[in-house]
Amino acid sequence: MDAKADIREYMHELGRAARAAARVLARADTNAKDKALHAIAAQLRASASELVAKNRKDLAKAREEGRDSAFIDRLTLTAASVEQMAKGVEEVAALADPVGEITALEKRPTGIEVGRMRVPLGVIAIIYESRPNVTADAAALCLKSGNACILRGGSEAIHSNRAIAACIKAGLEKAGLPLEAVQVVETTDRAAVGELITMNEYVDIIVPRGGKELIARLMRESRIPMIKHLDGVCHVYIDDQADPEMAVRIADNAKTQRYGTCNTLETLLVAEGIAAKVLPAIAAVYRAKGVEMRGDPATRALVPDAKAATEEDWYAEYLAPIAAIRVVKGLDEAMDHIALYGSQHTDAIVTNDKARAQRFLREVDSASVMVNASTRFADGYEFGLGAEIGISTDKLHARGPVGLEGLTSQKFVVLGHGEVRT
Amino acid sequence: MDAKADIREYMHELGRAARAAARVLARADTNAKDKALHAIAAQLRASASELVAKNRKDLAKAREEGRDSAFIDRLTLTAASVEQMAKGVEEVAALADPVGEITALEKRPTGIEVGRMRVPLGVIAIIYESRPNVTADAAALCLKSGNACILRGGSEAIHSNRAIAACIKAGLEKAGLPLEAVQVVETTDRAAVGELITMNEYVDIIVPRGGKELIARLMRESRIPMIKHLDGVCHVYIDDQADPEMAVRIADNAKTQRYGTCNTLETLLVAEGIAAKVLPAIAAVYRAKGVEMRGDPATRALVPDAKAATEEDWYAEYLAPIAAIRVVKGLDEAMDHIALYGSQHTDAIVTNDKARAQRFLREVDSASVMVNASTRFADGYEFGLGAEIGISTDKLHARGPVGLEGLTSQKFVVLGHGEVRT
Repeated sequence: MDAKADIREYMHELGRAARAAARVLARADTNAKDKALHAIAAQLRASASELVAKNRKDLAKAREEGRDSAFIDRLTLTAASVEQMAKGVEEVAALADPVGEITALEKRPTGIEVGRMRVPLGVIAIIYESRPNVTADAAALCLKSGNACILRGGSEAIHSNRAIAACIKAGLEKAGLPLEAVQVVETTDRAAVGELITMNEYVDIIVPRGGKELIARLMRESRIPMIKHLDGVCHVYIDDQADPEMAVRIADNAKTQRYGTCNTLETLLVAEGIAAKVLPAIAAVYRAKGVEMRGDPATRALVPDAKAATEEDWYAEYLAPIAAIRVVKGLDEAMDHIALYGSQHTDAIVTNDKARAQRFLREVDSASVMVNASTRFADGYEFGLGAEIGISTDKLHARGPVGLEGLTSQKFVVLGHGEVRT
Repeated sequence: MDAKADIREYMHELGRAARAAARVLARADTNAKDKALHAIAAQLRASASELVAKNRKDLAKAREEGRDSAFIDRLTLTAASVEQMAKGVEEVAALADPVGEITALEKRPTGIEVGRMRVPLGVIAIIYESRPNVTADAAALCLKSGNACILRGGSEAIHSNRAIAACIKAGLEKAGLPLEAVQVVETTDRAAVGELITMNEYVDIIVPRGGKELIARLMRESRIPMIKHLDGVCHVYIDDQADPEMAVRIADNAKTQRYGTCNTLETLLVAEGIAAKVLPAIAAVYRAKGVEMRGDPATRALVPDAKAATEEDWYAEYLAPIAAIRVVKGLDEAMDHIALYGSQHTDAIVTNDKARAQRFLREVDSASVMVNASTRFADGYEFGLGAEIGISTDKLHARGPVGLEGLTSQKFVVLGHGEVRT
């Protein structure tokens, strides 16, 4: 199956099957979906040694191709990671089913009652890279939210993904749900992605989980709505009404708890009225942990070993032990900085002044805004969503961490008694 | 200002100004927004004769160009329609402000409290055709929901739109809100639309209000999310458990109350068990009102003057006194038909069987699903939204009639007490 026409036909076949399965899944009851999820988890556990064996094929190829150790890490399945995958699927089974509930039912003057019902989106395409655990995670979230899915993992994980897909099919079969509810794209040809992101008669939404290159390609080429994640240039602003000890603790945690995550602090903003009190202490922590500091002149006056920040630093998502630091006059200048340089992901203020906290919450236009907490909390689990399919930096539909609810929509339901419009 | 580069610069200037105004509007309190809306309404009334005079210029050009009477109708402003516009703006002022409320605040095991705050989308671009009243309606909805807007009306209404824009600016000024909160594109060059739909650094969402050609162009060329309306191929399914009198009443109203609207019935589906009882009566009504009937063989056996329906008829959005009619076995065949040929806009079932009604509500994947009511109710006013910017046939973000809430989004807010992640 290498010719372009064949791939097109194959992908459209997946699309048609997914659309048909989506109709069945949309009306499946919670018990059937949970039964399938538990059966999938059991099958993953029972197949653990086979999954690890198939994964070895992918690993051998990755080593042959000279991939780096971070890549190999992401790709590797072990008995422990398979168990983790199975547990993740069971956790999704334990979440409340968002589908079918009618809310806000209200009687109108005409006599009709109008409400909203939460319903699945339909068919979700998930395009991801090396981590094979995404296959199980994403399938579980789509299944629980009543959506069919088409999973397109990286070619580097194809043997692992096929083996996981077999476990999922076995679970679906046990619960009497259509096997096409979860389909893994079997070809590694890149043309398959091109088809997937343009067949809008079959795919309702695309969730890319991968690097910026992948998302940039999809933004250029896709005509289907996406739940997508761009940059995470996160700020902590330390107000002059902050508790100094809390300020140091949050600046430390937001930057250093993990360097490579999207909700990590990249730029620290400090009010000039408190800079002399907190910046040397924060710098001491950063210095001890090997965080490179790049500051504006006012910062460098207080932190002599900070390098001079350039204009590019304020835009940078380092994902590394580097922090940009700027001293600002106060709240307004901090919010102006965030509006200009930020990426609308996650921003926090440290202050004991309630009015300023309120202004920051209201006026900073980011998916997650925080008062007196570390930006590292911006995460589906920490926010109580139970699980997350991704974090959205878009403004429409879902903002921030996206859980089951973000994989559903609401339609209007009208209960009438024979009313007609006059 | 005709050179392409000049138009680009002009549109980007509007974009920058809108972005700046959006930040101010997002924090504007309800009183200021309502004050502006009332001042706009007052100014529209005070300028009524001027608006009508400016409108005459547009009308003269339209007549010169040989436009048809429907076009002239849509374009015409009268003292009465200006009063209507002013009243519409006041009605938006009376709606509840959706912005700023924090809901679902919940304490997490870590100690942080997580909730959601409803916030404006930012900058909304509205692209519309001849009706100048859209200028006032859309501006009012965007303003109340805290969004800046860029309005691009048709060149055929440019004098009318400029005059309405002047009234809006006067109202904004009285309330101390930025004049750039509402900007009307002053050039009639089509290149302006090309800029507007690609400057995603300034525009958060596009709302096209126009025909299919406009929407098709935007779908091809735009990279900015849209709230858009495609086809309205609406169905009424008369179940064999329907009240026959109610069935006739709803089939009549859904088809004939207005022919040209998107929520008008296009295809009538009738269960074979009740067809002989209701179809002749419905046909008599349609016949009397001059509605052309196109049926499948079973329909034609009962309605001899119905023409033979072709495959294309099941897909057709006639927007005219024509109805496609098909006899189906029952609920499942009706839902299969709707899934295959429908446009996911509005579909209704007439039945006294509660289980079937429930299945129809849950399983028919349309923006509005109804039991025992006319499809003509699918409308923002009828649904209680107060006003509508449009009807969405998309699944993400907003489905069905879109009111103020659809022009907002929710961000996460985190209230901490110094918590950090471990």
